[in-house]
Amino acid sequence: MQLTTLGGAALRLAPRGTERLETADALSVDVEGAECNAAVAASRLGADAAWLSRLPDDPLGRRVAGELRGHEVEVLAPFGGGRQGLTFFERGATPREDGRVDDRAGAAVEGLDFDSLPTERVEVADVAYVAAGTPTTSTGLAEATAKFLKTARDGGATTALGLLDAAAVADDSDTDTLEGLLPAVDVLVATAPAVEAAFGRSGEPTRVTHALASNRGFETVALLRDGDAAAWHDSTVHEFALPAVETVDVTGAVDAFAGAFLVGLVDGEVKTALRGAVAADALVKTTPGALPVFTRSELEAVGETVERP
Amino acid sequence: MQLTTLGGAALRLAPRGTERLETADALSVDVEGAECNAAVAASRLGADAAWLSRLPDDPLGRRVAGELRGHEVEVLAPFGGGRQGLTFFERGATPREDGRVDDRAGAAVEGLDFDSLPTERVEVADVAYVAAGTPTTSTGLAEATAKFLKTARDGGATTALGLLDAAAVADDSDTDTLEGLLPAVDVLVATAPAVEAAFGRSGEPTRVTHALASNRGFETVALLRDGDAAAWHDSTVHEFALPAVETVDVTGAVDAFAGAFLVGLVDGEVKTALRGAVAADALVKTTPGALPVFTRSELEAVGETVERP
Amino acid sequence: MQLTTLGGAALRLAPRGTERLETADALSVDVEGAECNAAVAASRLGADAAWLSRLPDDPLGRRVAGELRGHEVEVLAPFGGGRQGLTFFERGATPREDGRVDDRAGAAVEGLDFDSLPTERVEVADVAYVAAGTPTTSTGLAEATAKFLKTARDGGATTALGLLDAAAVADDSDTDTLEGLLPAVDVLVATAPAVEAAFGRSGEPTRVTHALASNRGFETVALLRDGDAAAWHDSTVHEFALPAVETVDVTGAVDAFAGAFLVGLVDGEVKTALRGAVAADALVKTTPGALPVFTRSELEAVGETVERP
Amino acid sequence: MQLTTLGGAALRLAPRGTERLETADALSVDVEGAECNAAVAASRLGADAAWLSRLPDDPLGRRVAGELRGHEVEVLAPFGGGRQGLTFFERGATPREDGRVDDRAGAAVEGLDFDSLPTERVEVADVAYVAAGTPTTSTGLAEATAKFLKTARDGGATTALGLLDAAAVADDSDTDTLEGLLPAVDVLVATAPAVEAAFGRSGEPTRVTHALASNRGFETVALLRDGDAAAWHDSTVHEFALPAVETVDVTGAVDAFAGAFLVGLVDGEVKTALRGAVAADALVKTTPGALPVFTRSELEAVGETVERP
Amino acid sequence: MQLTTLGGAALRLAPRGTERLETADALSVDVEGAECNAAVAASRLGADAAWLSRLPDDPLGRRVAGELRGHEVEVLAPFGGGRQGLTFFERGATPREDGRVDDRAGAAVEGLDFDSLPTERVEVADVAYVAAGTPTTSTGLAEATAKFLKTARDGGATTALGLLDAAAVADDSDTDTLEGLLPAVDVLVATAPAVEAAFGRSGEPTRVTHALASNRGFETVALLRDGDAAAWHDSTVHEFALPAVETVDVTGAVDAFAGAFLVGLVDGEVKTALRGAVAADALVKTTPGALPVFTRSELEAVGETVERP
Amino acid sequence: MQLTTLGGAALRLAPRGTERLETADALSVDVEGAECNAAVAASRLGADAAWLSRLPDDPLGRRVAGELRGHEVEVLAPFGGGRQGLTFFERGATPREDGRVDDRAGAAVEGLDFDSLPTERVEVADVAYVAAGTPTTSTGLAEATAKFLKTARDGGATTALGLLDAAAVADDSDTDTLEGLLPAVDVLVATAPAVEAAFGRSGEPTRVTHALASNRGFETVALLRDGDAAAWHDSTVHEFALPAVETVDVTGAVDAFAGAFLVGLVDGEVKTALRGAVAADALVKTTPGALPVFTRSELEAVGETVERP
Repeated sequence: MQLTTLGGAALRLAPRGTERLETADALSVDVEGAECNAAVAASRLGADAAWLSRLPDDPLGRRVAGELRGHEVEVLAPFGGGRQGLTFFERGATPREDGRVDDRAGAAVEGLDFDSLPTERVEVADVAYVAAGTPTTSTGLAEATAKFLKTARDGGATTALGLLDAAAVADDSDTDTLEGLLPAVDVLVATAPAVEAAFGRSGEPTRVTHALASNRGFETVALLRDGDAAAWHDSTVHEFALPAVETVDVTGAVDAFAGAFLVGLVDGEVKTALRGAVAADALVKTTPGALPVFTRSELEAVGETVERP
Repeated sequence: MQLTTLGGAALRLAPRGTERLETADALSVDVEGAECNAAVAASRLGADAAWLSRLPDDPLGRRVAGELRGHEVEVLAPFGGGRQGLTFFERGATPREDGRVDDRAGAAVEGLDFDSLPTERVEVADVAYVAAGTPTTSTGLAEATAKFLKTARDGGATTALGLLDAAAVADDSDTDTLEGLLPAVDVLVATAPAVEAAFGRSGEPTRVTHALASNRGFETVALLRDGDAAAWHDSTVHEFALPAVETVDVTGAVDAFAGAFLVGLVDGEVKTALRGAVAADALVKTTPGALPVFTRSELEAVGETVERP
Repeated sequence: MQLTTLGGAALRLAPRGTERLETADALSVDVEGAECNAAVAASRLGADAAWLSRLPDDPLGRRVAGELRGHEVEVLAPFGGGRQGLTFFERGATPREDGRVDDRAGAAVEGLDFDSLPTERVEVADVAYVAAGTPTTSTGLAEATAKFLKTARDGGATTALGLLDAAAVADDSDTDTLEGLLPAVDVLVATAPAVEAAFGRSGEPTRVTHALASNRGFETVALLRDGDAAAWHDSTVHEFALPAVETVDVTGAVDAFAGAFLVGLVDGEVKTALRGAVAADALVKTTPGALPVFTRSELEAVGETVERP
Repeated sequence: MQLTTLGGAALRLAPRGTERLETADALSVDVEGAECNAAVAASRLGADAAWLSRLPDDPLGRRVAGELRGHEVEVLAPFGGGRQGLTFFERGATPREDGRVDDRAGAAVEGLDFDSLPTERVEVADVAYVAAGTPTTSTGLAEATAKFLKTARDGGATTALGLLDAAAVADDSDTDTLEGLLPAVDVLVATAPAVEAAFGRSGEPTRVTHALASNRGFETVALLRDGDAAAWHDSTVHEFALPAVETVDVTGAVDAFAGAFLVGLVDGEVKTALRGAVAADALVKTTPGALPVFTRSELEAVGETVERP
Repeated sequence: MQLTTLGGAALRLAPRGTERLETADALSVDVEGAECNAAVAASRLGADAAWLSRLPDDPLGRRVAGELRGHEVEVLAPFGGGRQGLTFFERGATPREDGRVDDRAGAAVEGLDFDSLPTERVEVADVAYVAAGTPTTSTGLAEATAKFLKTARDGGATTALGLLDAAAVADDSDTDTLEGLLPAVDVLVATAPAVEAAFGRSGEPTRVTHALASNRGFETVALLRDGDAAAWHDSTVHEFALPAVETVDVTGAVDAFAGAFLVGLVDGEVKTALRGAVAADALVKTTPGALPVFTRSELEAVGETVERP
Repeated sequence: MQLTTLGGAALRLAPRGTERLETADALSVDVEGAECNAAVAASRLGADAAWLSRLPDDPLGRRVAGELRGHEVEVLAPFGGGRQGLTFFERGATPREDGRVDDRAGAAVEGLDFDSLPTERVEVADVAYVAAGTPTTSTGLAEATAKFLKTARDGGATTALGLLDAAAVADDSDTDTLEGLLPAVDVLVATAPAVEAAFGRSGEPTRVTHALASNRGFETVALLRDGDAAAWHDSTVHEFALPAVETVDVTGAVDAFAGAFLVGLVDGEVKTALRGAVAADALVKTTPGALPVFTRSELEAVGETVERP
């Protein structure tokens, strides 16, 4: 199964444990990005995954590329101008929330020109995936996303959109950008807060997935909520409760949900895909950092414990 | 709002996570002290905070001074003889309790001579604060505390005593020392175990605060218990339940309660002060180390979730 | 009280916190081994503990010896051929399980020749202890174990077997090896999963201990389950519930249960021994690493909170 | 002695030892900035030092402020828009050079408006100091620098310029900016490479200092070269060889040279000032990070070993 | 330029700085292997590099694969039986030598079956490279090496042998194995100690390279000594002195010498190849760990400083 | 060979690398003490070494005992009152010197009562060793030292004094204490600065050793200087130059010199003893911390490189 994705990535700098950014003396370095997180999850489940992007030609950009290649994702990202996007992150502890300083303005990915990228991997893809935060970053990235989806569909790929981060659709222009892309999307993978932010719709996941599919003409819709997840496909809805999780770091979990769902969707049936997606989400929460480090057998072991709500 | 405090500080040396002092290969270094913890909390809420003390003229003493200045507390501590007080601390995990080796005998603060300190900051203070552990350390510090409270009151300040650590009033002579100071105290900020140790009194916080205020003539009494907190002032009692907390390190939390309460008391009404104090206590528990690292907006966000028991 | 043990030890290499072996950049180094864990627990409770083994003549073998000596266990392990056994360990977080890569094949202990060891400590022992994993490692170690138990019993010692790890009795030949040794065993200290793996027996601990004692002729049987523990001795059964534990690392806890039980058994009555064993199990779970780092007074403090189920 | 400075500061993120940015798993966090480095050096020698700047209102900006306050520098930096400037730094080892990724575009300091700053500290300053990199950053900062120097001189201060980093005068417009400011400068503290970059002048330090003073009308000129340093003042030149140094990290050393020289200049005679400056440069090289952590007595001890070339 | 290599890799576990294996509390984790080190060096210089091997199907084997992929080397290593080879390493300090515990017996690579590997990358290679330590490990690996060299040569590749580690040719059977392979080798890259161990030959590098080429019929011979390096090709010898190096860790440096030399050889002329090889050797010594982390421009900058002895 | 020593030990807390105590965020924990350092060195060379002392009954005291036992030194130190002595240490870098804050006042060892110690190990010792810093600490320790030396000599032991730290004989009363003990001393192991401080004598080591032996009646005198070492015994003087050393941490090196010398003296001839002592001194300097971690074969390998000046 070939999964091709397009998007940016940030270096994430975070203190140990529950220390605070304001006073921590050392920061660990990780890579995160909605689409590359998903690509890594897919690769770990056996997919042939690729990531199109643009990176700065400096040690930080090379680090991002190296980290993703180490997780067996093909990196198709010309080194060019701009800086490496950063996220400073600190883990909260109840009642203190996770904190973050997003420092991505001027990132190299903003200068991404789709036409200059090698598009072979898009043309042969089984699934082409992008998350909502990519087109809403800039007009240039919105155009690149549109071309990406079109090229993929023309090549016979299933196109998929991740609507996972409510902050990515924070205002009307974001929503407008998104609306323009939706006709080119076959599969929507979403979280409840992002669906509410984008479409003002909330409620039981079985209903919401059905409504989204009907109204928007998606082939498949997967939805993740706080305690459960549902997937609508071919007039059938499947639903699972999320397993109990000892959470270490939630970053990247929803993206792994998307990656695992798309692999499962192409490989087999929707129910199994959703089960795997729920397990991927759980596993990513148990490790620090955003990039998934699970094996297929670990995912299946957790998947077996997942039950209907 | 000007808060001036007097007391000692220890360097706290602690292993990572739940490792034990007996076998840990590295110790992190923090600063802690009942009054300086409170001063930092106050400073973070916008107060102009100062700390009177005495420090050894060596890298450890300079470290204490630097750490507190970094949290925007004015340090008025002549460098002199004596050693830097230390606390070796290890975090427990149920059923193992937190462990500590107190190694403060001979600390420079024991040689503190109030008359040789610059007292301008005491004279202009809105609130002058000291915790019970300071006067009960030595006769010299008991005298210094008495002068501190008198100078402050003469200057028009509200005087406040922290009765937060039961170990500070472990025997009769401690209690005697304390009794001698009480007439000079306007506000008592206390924990239930310390009140029981000092005055043999326990029970519902609303009752205890009222009783203390009546019998001892305090203007204001704030009391922190395991699950709730109360404050008596001007014949009215306010009460809040403590929020759920994922505790990382309790050190300093009660002192932040005191610091936040005193800032709130001067800034506005008692109810808001208590709400902030409860939030400060919760936030300090979520980070390693004793010195508070919260912002006013974080405190207010937590404060909003605090409700009556 | 003199406790003499025989077995192997591994260096345990583990990432910090919940990081994964596949991606962690640093590993902490610990020592673990069923019998040496028990010996350390016993030593910490005042026993004169010894450990017979065989170690490679390299920095890793010396490290194992040094670590155990540091916990006041006498190490009687000639340095010889073979390599140092290793265990790569990663801590899980629900729903991800603890992971381990056992890398002990070819370990120096496999070449252990009982006749070449100094046996004075076996002859004067009050208790001689070995865990099931030692004789089931190889024919050579099965023979050494038989000689060890015989020498001990001849010298007047109580002989004890730890049946704590179900993986140590994974197949029929393991069980056969074990059966051959049982007649030489006075005391069995076991966990419920290992009893089920070895003898196919499960159920209420009071019943299981009684049945094992009757059928196999043990003088004493102690059994640890998920939530409780029981001990049968002299026609009487004692039972305690396990205390609530904030678990950091379970490694070595069952071995400390064994070590503490055997010390208690020789020192006094079975009920006290079981109480101490349950407390030892709880305390070891609260620290990283396998080797116990508690004091007798800490153990007694926890023991006092242990109650009947 | 009152030293007031104006400039920006970066958080410096650096791997341990000689690890590389591309692959390091953790980065230590420090603060650096030409003027604040100098201010810290001055403060450590007893000066009353202040730093005017502008910082982002986030944990990173607060960190910069806290770090400098911890070194007893008064921070007069309104929290405003923009981001925290960063420098990624890796220490080289011969023949590999130190590496850095400068990531300061869009830093909050670029929005600094001199008129909105509290200028009392400028008006009462004995010395007002700025480094060439500050006015050459942007037109806004060039204007702020001009106002800063004028305000200081009007208040009776000696004005000083640091021409220490050749990269700060990389092109003609930088030189033009600098030329515009020179008439307002009394003291020039410079390095040989930066003098060559700015004025195309090189050679023996005694000659260069004299030439600069004559041609440009400076009252005092101090110059630091690879192996020696010289200072011209009142028609006299002093010269010292640099002591042998086991270099750990050169960052900030030239700024400490400047800070120590200015303190010495106000406190006493030029020769002593230069001796202290050379010692400060040496001491900063012996510790990781840019901010000086020496005491006056350490500086004097090194200063005593400094001799004429 | 396509470089294909065959060999094993070890996880290297090493204490920080100059700590000792016997007492260090934490070990850093790296990957090292004669051929994969060379492949990484080649990849960093723009080559399309591949590594054929066999790895255990566990987190340690996956880690090796991930690390190499992260350095953009294609890993063609089926996951199979056996364990992950390990090297425990400690850095010495004069007069204490580097220490190592090699723990590679039973490594998965010993079960490598060349016929089961995908050989496309061998057939299209420009250069096929193996180091002497691979065939001398076992008869199976000697056979695999022979097939590898034959397949490569049949496909038109230049074949190259690394004779870099004297320990790899420690006894006569090692030398015999090597002799059997030499006829299939076009290029020899060697160190002086290994040449002496294998062929009993030492002396001036220009002579030794010439003698080896004449007697053994190599097309090209490169030789690295303590202070210089030489390369013989087409009846011409080039020679360079090694640059001064502040050595952090020598591991992998000779392998980078080989990798860089082979890239240079295919890309252009021998003199440039040797210059780059000498620079690669120097750069790898400046960073901890075996895998090269330099860029082509860094290599060229160092190369420019390399001169004839 | 049995070596019995008497003295105190400190926990040494030190920042990483060349960080400073004033600002380091973490401190590593080591054990150091003139006599226990020597005992560990002796134990590593095969001696049966013991250490008499007194320790506080807390995790810090237990840590000291455990660390020394881990190096196979028998610890005969009753747990009693007092605190654990500490040393805060920071490594310098030229021209910055090593720094230390000695914090040993009130240490448990000050309460040592020789009569309450088990003296069997003193009576059977081949050599009894104490360093000058122990008797000069307090009158009580001076008395204990006198009893220790007398008991040892009565038992037939050679008595040895270490005069290694000039600070231990800082004033006249120290010298008086020392003079009182000298008649009971057979072997003096000294450094040049300490000899000058105690006896006002300096010069060529061969002369100084001879003069000390003649005037004071020592059987044997070993002397360590900056670049060489000498030993006088039985009218013969041996002399060696110190080998080149890449120094990491000098702490404990002179004590290892003493320990190795005494082992060599009993085991064989003085020349070999001095050679080993010089090698031990060199090896300890190559690792962080005070306790030696070398093997006999490492020591011999270095010893072979040691030559006459």
